Amino acid sequence: MVGKPLVSIVSAGLSKFGKREGLYARELFAEAFKEALDRCPRLEPKRDIKAMFVGHMGEAYEHQGHTGAAAADWTGLLNIPATRTEAACASSGAALRSGVYAVLSGLADVVLVGGVEKMTHRTTAEVTEYLAMASDYPFEQWHGITFPGLFALMAKAHMHQYGTTEAQLAAVAVKNHYHGTLNPKAQMQKEITVETVLASRIVASPLKLYDCSLITDGASCAILTKPELARRFTDQPVHIIGSGQASDTIGLYERQSLTSLSAAKLAAKIAYEMAAVTPDDIDVAEVHDCFTSAEIIAYEDLGFCKAGEGGKLAESGETRLGGRLPVNTSGGLKAKGHPVGATGTAQAYEIYLQLTGQAERRQVKDAKLGLTHNVGGSGATAAVHIYRSETQ
Amino acid sequence: MVGKPLVSIVSAGLSKFGKREGLYARELFAEAFKEALDRCPRLEPKRDIKAMFVGHMGEAYEHQGHTGAAAADWTGLLNIPATRTEAACASSGAALRSGVYAVLSGLADVVLVGGVEKMTHRTTAEVTEYLAMASDYPFEQWHGITFPGLFALMAKAHMHQYGTTEAQLAAVAVKNHYHGTLNPKAQMQKEITVETVLASRIVASPLKLYDCSLITDGASCAILTKPELARRFTDQPVHIIGSGQASDTIGLYERQSLTSLSAAKLAAKIAYEMAAVTPDDIDVAEVHDCFTSAEIIAYEDLGFCKAGEGGKLAESGETRLGGRLPVNTSGGLKAKGHPVGATGTAQAYEIYLQLTGQAERRQVKDAKLGLTHNVGGSGATAAVHIYRSETQ
Repeated sequence: MVGKPLVSIVSAGLSKFGKREGLYARELFAEAFKEALDRCPRLEPKRDIKAMFVGHMGEAYEHQGHTGAAAADWTGLLNIPATRTEAACASSGAALRSGVYAVLSGLADVVLVGGVEKMTHRTTAEVTEYLAMASDYPFEQWHGITFPGLFALMAKAHMHQYGTTEAQLAAVAVKNHYHGTLNPKAQMQKEITVETVLASRIVASPLKLYDCSLITDGASCAILTKPELARRFTDQPVHIIGSGQASDTIGLYERQSLTSLSAAKLAAKIAYEMAAVTPDDIDVAEVHDCFTSAEIIAYEDLGFCKAGEGGKLAESGETRLGGRLPVNTSGGLKAKGHPVGATGTAQAYEIYLQLTGQAERRQVKDAKLGLTHNVGGSGATAAVHIYRSETQ
Repeated sequence: MVGKPLVSIVSAGLSKFGKREGLYARELFAEAFKEALDRCPRLEPKRDIKAMFVGHMGEAYEHQGHTGAAAADWTGLLNIPATRTEAACASSGAALRSGVYAVLSGLADVVLVGGVEKMTHRTTAEVTEYLAMASDYPFEQWHGITFPGLFALMAKAHMHQYGTTEAQLAAVAVKNHYHGTLNPKAQMQKEITVETVLASRIVASPLKLYDCSLITDGASCAILTKPELARRFTDQPVHIIGSGQASDTIGLYERQSLTSLSAAKLAAKIAYEMAAVTPDDIDVAEVHDCFTSAEIIAYEDLGFCKAGEGGKLAESGETRLGGRLPVNTSGGLKAKGHPVGATGTAQAYEIYLQLTGQAERRQVKDAKLGLTHNVGGSGATAAVHIYRSETQ
């Protein structure tokens, strides 16, 4: 029997992802919030919303921290408690988790969670440096390694241990680009082939340009409430039935394994147990494909296949729309884009659309159970959430 | 009748504040955490602590974000959910509030909250720039104003509206320096006179060097649990009976008033109502004296005196140890120091000591009810908490 709802999502919003010149992060956040309001006309934001958490990774991009208060101000939600959460690329996964705590606490019946990042006005070198702040300074950054290098080490280890191939990595990119063409808000709108990926320039071997996610401007949000209040705001709530967040060593060099993320496995275990479901029950998932290899490792960490079989699963087509378990129907970080602080709740947004039948051309038929998997840094943070539709 | 305990503090810790050369923030956090463990021998951290929130304001100082995971790693609390909260100088006030949510949620019975900042290895110009990121970028920072300037505007407005004098501002500094000499962990350990303050160089008129809080390295933490579990860990819990967090416009230029902080007034109102106490009931308070003028405004916002009478209250001696309502017995941000991310839970640490009779030379006799007031930015965030001793 599937677990009880912890909290319910009554609406969600997403800004267009991509290069959003001339806008500040706060304006992108307001754009996402406006969509959430438009989808939920019964909600009166100033009356109903009692707290907010905003995932935001880097204050360097806009020389702007204090993002909770800035977002509260620019969304017209002045006065309520507004806190920025930061857990690297899992910043809004952590915001979602914080919102779950807040709703369950009884202190805030309706909570706005979301995330935002404005990145594209910076050079690639600047972005690479700002992102690197989420890795270990004394033992990683100081020596010059950045995230492509850290993930390349994991990819190499996976290839070495399991025989995973570059073509299997490329299959992830091809799938997610295809999905991106079905999502009008995705940054990338073109299909690619395995050959395109394999021929692209090397970023950090074995990862090539098309194995990497994008530098993106964007924002996302979701509105949470108690399950017993959800129907006041919508006829189509989506229920969060499992929530796991876990941590691991900040440095990759301290890990027991390079071929799986123990924080992701632990967060998944907690979420599955709370939800009383198994990986086989999941109909649709958004996973943290910051690099193509990370999606393959995610399949394994989430139990979608056995350890070492993620590459084969990627090639099989089963995780493509129409397959057994479509993964990253939004296009994922790879094609929808990766505005780092916004990614966690952008994943929740996609699952919200899927489980309410609003995913249009990329709708997974009869999707009832969804999962999001959001990773921070090289795996020092992971947040996994499991969702079910009202009709499940 | 005083309100019911929301959550209970079963221990707390504070690093030495000051110039802590050669240490990383994570090491300072571990130092504070070790004290909390030493004070609470019945707690087994890896068994008992289920989540943590770490207030940390600026990743620029050490080129290090992802502070929740880094702190979890270096305190040996691997695996648990660990999230950085950021709300400018109220970052750990927000961590405390997040911890309250988490304990009340039922998902985490014991939660570590704290904060940290490593600042003194940077130049004053760098620190001023990093701090400024908590103000509004397009409408404040871009034009060159920094926090001393923003608070100077408020101080000037208060002087203009109420006749508050520079000598009254100085009285706050004199009192807090005196308190600092009674706190071995305070950065400043010398008494000063009103004349010293008035003769010090101008930073942003009317604020002079001795009106400003310090640039400090330090960390703080507290361990929270459900009231019904508190006795398992300690015979002397301190109960949080009121919790208010509120926000206001990110920019000072948008405010209705320059002589009070509406977020602080609102947070206080919520906390007082939840605690079912009035300002007259408070025995000891830690308030956010980032500048001397801010303590005077805090008196008024918290209802310790009427609007406009904060300057007189500062001069009266009533808020000095031995007076009617001692404020900032720790030395406050002014003399204990202001490692920005650590300040909120450092205030909670002081109240924990006071309400458990462990404040040694600065003990407030028979202190039963305490209050903390933590402000972010120029007032866009405020967190107010009210505490009572077990014996109240």
